[in-house]
Amino acid sequence: MALYLTEDQVTNMLTMEIALDSLDDVFRARSEGKVGNIPRSRLPLGRGSYNLMGASWPDAGIVGHKSYAAGAGGASFHVMLYGTNGEGLLAIIEANRMGQIRTGAASGIATRYMAREDASSVGIIGSGYQAETQLEAVAAVRELKSARVFSRTAERRNSFAERMSERLQIDVQPAESAESVVQGADVVITVTNTTEPVLTGEMLGMGVHINAAGGNSWLRRELDTHAVAMSDIVATDDIDQAKIECGELMRAAETGHFSWERLVRLDRIVRGLRQGRSKAEDVTLFESQGVAFEDIAVCKRLLDMAREQGIGTELPG
Amino acid sequence: MALYLTEDQVTNMLTMEIALDSLDDVFRARSEGKVGNIPRSRLPLGRGSYNLMGASWPDAGIVGHKSYAAGAGGASFHVMLYGTNGEGLLAIIEANRMGQIRTGAASGIATRYMAREDASSVGIIGSGYQAETQLEAVAAVRELKSARVFSRTAERRNSFAERMSERLQIDVQPAESAESVVQGADVVITVTNTTEPVLTGEMLGMGVHINAAGGNSWLRRELDTHAVAMSDIVATDDIDQAKIECGELMRAAETGHFSWERLVRLDRIVRGLRQGRSKAEDVTLFESQGVAFEDIAVCKRLLDMAREQGIGTELPG
Repeated sequence: MALYLTEDQVTNMLTMEIALDSLDDVFRARSEGKVGNIPRSRLPLGRGSYNLMGASWPDAGIVGHKSYAAGAGGASFHVMLYGTNGEGLLAIIEANRMGQIRTGAASGIATRYMAREDASSVGIIGSGYQAETQLEAVAAVRELKSARVFSRTAERRNSFAERMSERLQIDVQPAESAESVVQGADVVITVTNTTEPVLTGEMLGMGVHINAAGGNSWLRRELDTHAVAMSDIVATDDIDQAKIECGELMRAAETGHFSWERLVRLDRIVRGLRQGRSKAEDVTLFESQGVAFEDIAVCKRLLDMAREQGIGTELPG
Repeated sequence: MALYLTEDQVTNMLTMEIALDSLDDVFRARSEGKVGNIPRSRLPLGRGSYNLMGASWPDAGIVGHKSYAAGAGGASFHVMLYGTNGEGLLAIIEANRMGQIRTGAASGIATRYMAREDASSVGIIGSGYQAETQLEAVAAVRELKSARVFSRTAERRNSFAERMSERLQIDVQPAESAESVVQGADVVITVTNTTEPVLTGEMLGMGVHINAAGGNSWLRRELDTHAVAMSDIVATDDIDQAKIECGELMRAAETGHFSWERLVRLDRIVRGLRQGRSKAEDVTLFESQGVAFEDIAVCKRLLDMAREQGIGTELPG
């Protein structure tokens, strides 16, 4: 019987630790060629878009997809999992909260393998829905002492700082400019929907690791070309998707400041086939695309937990 | 609230007439540029494949996809519909029977607009699951007097003939060769999984309409290159998908016997922008790909009926 899991049920079960663990597993499997992925396709809707992306992980017994219709009134995300051994449909999982956590976790995995071991301070640009789990994920893989947050609206960055200080038990301070949050930070997170760069090469010091986790459209870019060009190592969770969606890499490549040949798959770094950082002074950059194999890996874990704990509604049929 | 519809519920509601009507509507909308489509993507599984395809029809208020994991033990198909005005998920519909009927209906639409008005006899090669609805659809759009069926196993073609004679109230006879069913038939249907052509140009008489509705993989072909080359008009439900999946057209194009420029979109014929047949003697060919906009159109109709009749299970959440 297939299970249906609601947002509430997912929220109660899923932790950042579980998501980090699932992603570490699926990245390793992918580096062995054992994971299939269908990059995101979009269809335009009136004031939004419909998105469809799929993945397979036969060794874990699953194949499936994520779909969502995003519009002015928000979006509803769903993941469907099928068995790879003829079991048919296994689960339909409401995936808003799941997506928020897995996107954070992808940056967490990148930080684990690319940031300096002694990284202890974070600068974060953006304070929206996705910003919380970005910071939470970095806090899960490094011993953080402090973080600074900038976003355009003072009220929002203040409330983010207060909320996250309490939740993570570290000192999170609001700041009045992107420059001031980046200065001296060991890890920089950009998680905005900006079309004009918020992070420039000029702002960057040596040894920093950047997680660029904002908008997935070539119309947007969070980093300027200088910041891309001065990064010693540039990684992404999916090269195919980056080539059609990652605005800052596409622009840097188009203008001759970046070569796609330089782009490293994060799964190769996770498995140790490539270095995430060769020395303390390196600037490292993770371009987060958000891909379907990450979704099905986390959802597989959710399904296992739900079955074990007797959670979820059985679908008819 | 979103609805879940099972195979049984779909089977009870969906008729060929409803499917033909839905497809006629969506083909017309597509010819006006009002329908979006994401061609099928596949991921290999151990002994089968996972398939994902999507479509949007904003004027009808729907966007969604069909997914299925097909393997040795069969396949389970699902269609998910979202609203295009921020309604979120509308329905999840089990779609095996739906797919069988809509694939028949696509050939029915092609026959309606491409076959001779006075077509009264059908030759059908193949007697499997998809063959029944192919014949049923043609019977719904033309006054049939007789049909002949050939497939490799005598028992199956005999049982198909008996079953369909009774269901359609026409004379359906089994035959011992493909040649003998094609001879004199006004409409020829191929619906096999063959890799070697079952229908050759040599077999074809003047004025015939062909529905090629079998396997959707470039590894397969039902018609030989001669049959493609001698067709005066060649139409398909989706050109993008035909270019990557339609084995007989791909081979004919590759060997210089067919030009993709000749391929006509069925929706243009339905709307009268192109002729389906210019004279009685033409040989016309419909290459059925099976595309997602057909699925969502039929499923929209199912959803409307289910709501009206109070059928289906409301999903939690």
